[in-house]
Amino acid sequence: MRILAKDLRDAAERSEKDIVLSGWIHRIRELGAVSFIVLRDRSGLVQLVLDGKCEFTLESVITARGEAALNEKAPGGAELRVARIDCLSRAAADLPFQVNGDVSKTGIEAILDQRSLSLRNPAISAIFRVQSTIIEAFSAYLREHDFTEIKTSKLVSGSTEGGTNLFAVEYFDRKVYLAQSPQCYKQTLVASGLERVFEVAPVYRAEKHDTPRHLNEYVSLDIEMGFIESEKELIELEKGVLAHIFEEVARKNAADLALWVKNGASAPGADAVFNAPVITYEEALGIANVESAKKKGARIFDINPDAERYVCDWALREKGVDLVFVNEFPRRHRPFYVYPLDSVRTMSFDALFRGIEITSGGRRQHDYDAQLEALPRFGVKPESMEDYLSIFKYGCPPHGGFAIGLERLTAKIMGLANVKEASLFPRDRRRVTP
Amino acid sequence: MRILAKDLRDAAERSEKDIVLSGWIHRIRELGAVSFIVLRDRSGLVQLVLDGKCEFTLESVITARGEAALNEKAPGGAELRVARIDCLSRAAADLPFQVNGDVSKTGIEAILDQRSLSLRNPAISAIFRVQSTIIEAFSAYLREHDFTEIKTSKLVSGSTEGGTNLFAVEYFDRKVYLAQSPQCYKQTLVASGLERVFEVAPVYRAEKHDTPRHLNEYVSLDIEMGFIESEKELIELEKGVLAHIFEEVARKNAADLALWVKNGASAPGADAVFNAPVITYEEALGIANVESAKKKGARIFDINPDAERYVCDWALREKGVDLVFVNEFPRRHRPFYVYPLDSVRTMSFDALFRGIEITSGGRRQHDYDAQLEALPRFGVKPESMEDYLSIFKYGCPPHGGFAIGLERLTAKIMGLANVKEASLFPRDRRRVTP
Repeated sequence: MRILAKDLRDAAERSEKDIVLSGWIHRIRELGAVSFIVLRDRSGLVQLVLDGKCEFTLESVITARGEAALNEKAPGGAELRVARIDCLSRAAADLPFQVNGDVSKTGIEAILDQRSLSLRNPAISAIFRVQSTIIEAFSAYLREHDFTEIKTSKLVSGSTEGGTNLFAVEYFDRKVYLAQSPQCYKQTLVASGLERVFEVAPVYRAEKHDTPRHLNEYVSLDIEMGFIESEKELIELEKGVLAHIFEEVARKNAADLALWVKNGASAPGADAVFNAPVITYEEALGIANVESAKKKGARIFDINPDAERYVCDWALREKGVDLVFVNEFPRRHRPFYVYPLDSVRTMSFDALFRGIEITSGGRRQHDYDAQLEALPRFGVKPESMEDYLSIFKYGCPPHGGFAIGLERLTAKIMGLANVKEASLFPRDRRRVTP
Repeated sequence: MRILAKDLRDAAERSEKDIVLSGWIHRIRELGAVSFIVLRDRSGLVQLVLDGKCEFTLESVITARGEAALNEKAPGGAELRVARIDCLSRAAADLPFQVNGDVSKTGIEAILDQRSLSLRNPAISAIFRVQSTIIEAFSAYLREHDFTEIKTSKLVSGSTEGGTNLFAVEYFDRKVYLAQSPQCYKQTLVASGLERVFEVAPVYRAEKHDTPRHLNEYVSLDIEMGFIESEKELIELEKGVLAHIFEEVARKNAADLALWVKNGASAPGADAVFNAPVITYEEALGIANVESAKKKGARIFDINPDAERYVCDWALREKGVDLVFVNEFPRRHRPFYVYPLDSVRTMSFDALFRGIEITSGGRRQHDYDAQLEALPRFGVKPESMEDYLSIFKYGCPPHGGFAIGLERLTAKIMGLANVKEASLFPRDRRRVTP
């Protein structure tokens, strides 16, 4: 029976004679009459010692049988003395880039073009092992807090945001659109009595900008809950969610984080998350302008990408944490469905983490009449919103929600420069393959 | 602080005086000078006792404060003696159907058109509480077995299946398609060294049939794993996955199953799942024809929907379980990428559960040259498959996988007649809202 690379040392301690290892040939070193092969499987790297030359190419998939032996100089402290090797799949010799080298020398386009190769580099696959933990921890925390996981349609007949930035789909004899967010559905399900729901699913933005911050398709970690009074309860919930995600990543992915430590990869501690400052939009603008002035930067009129960085710099310096919640966004910056705090401010917030917005959320307007009255002020025709308004017609509790961008959160934990590196198969204006 | 309906009895046993309950008015009964209100929240139903008339409409959202008291005649064995009620959201009086009644009297179109109302019926929301458990159990079992959760793009430039039944998307200045399955990506990630991956995500089929078995958008529970020898290891894995799902549903959703017991809702036991027969395609055809002849049905030439029902009937009668795995499908019925067993049969299988196919899967061809050679025999041009073939070029282990249709599995556990009832917001040829 096959064992994994990580278990070879235990087998060696028991002096097991008939061991099977399978994986990819990561590296070959010939030393006189002996070959040292580094084999890579899903658990890590292990050394094989072979009499004679290795006749297989790098990255070929092999199965090796032999005896486990302790060797403190080998990775993991053990090696396999090979009695027999079989090749399961021979790799072509023209590898387009070096899989076993320093990944920082490979350009992002090659990494994304050649996913079945680039992910063989342990540092690249580390990103997605962490991402898998993020999804798991997000879901587990919410289930623990009585949330129901939902799956809603990504094909919608219109947009609550007003119809811009949508991708059209030819759906039989009509046109539908890829959903920009499941918000309307989340609200429907809160109103339906599920009260607390979450969804992990793709969302689509037909935005033309091509920046290291944007993807046209990304995974949204969505939350909506009933019976809240303000966005402050949502911020507390998000702190709990993030603290649990970070704890789980630190616990399960220490080795993956270590591979990116020189880029600043780390998971903040739970204490830091719970101590993250909550400041108002006006306060954030003030802080951003002070920081900008220090660096002789331009005056800031809005929480733009520069302001996001400045506010995070401030939080890290003053509060020891690079996570900030900015609430009370002005009505003029938020869509029609956001619940007003007063005539100019709203019960909404953004979460900024390591210089970038990872979350937008807030309490929603749940009152049918108030929403109907507000629509024209936002230039929205009530007749176009009938389906949306119907959510509030037959009893809908006060509620709100938010969403965390999975790729942005992953990128910021790992210290990646470009959010596309945190998407297995990213989509942008130019990229639709692989 | 608000408590949930399910916790009122505990509060009553402690004679708590200052209890807050929030939820929807499920039912009102006036008896002389007293009103009995059944309040519904996410945890269930509870009785409120109010002096005087209830001035709120059914389905309005209220918050009630008062004293908890034991009452064996009340649902849950306790009631709230109300000191004060506040209305958070008044429901319009023209409910389009009765929320608190027997849901079997409401037509499927009304149920799907009015999700924020129909889900208020505890039997309807039960379907989706079970579905949430299915997703949780599926993911937990696979993580336990060293699988990594992945999220792949749903926008693809072509199809491995040959380009039919695809929805086109207007993607900036070109056309892309909604993915029919993540199979190509799953295979890429097995080859990349992740070895074992799973994904929970929507898939799209632009098929014109409108039947109780089909959805044009559904959630696929996808699995792919490396280092297998045949489809038999995949069947064993699926038995483990299903047994765990059924155990978790039985454990967490007993009350939800009970609401559908007269439709046959139940979760099979783990023993039954592990004993489920594995029969070949030829054997299945033979069984289907014997069953069909008994019922004076037509001769069966293929594992069509009738055959699926007959084979499940046979398994339930002969083996005590309505789950069957049919393997060794003929090459002529399977796509080009399926691994051959011999010149006519393949290492592929379907899982049939309670009369319907819930899974299709198998070992894949992982050899570059063998796949290249086979393509023309399936009428596929090798030049159109370059991206796909590249998966196998640089070392790809023998591998395979399968997918379980989430809505079909949910529908069959609950005893639903139509798979659309197991989708929150189903999409078919006519339905694109809500």
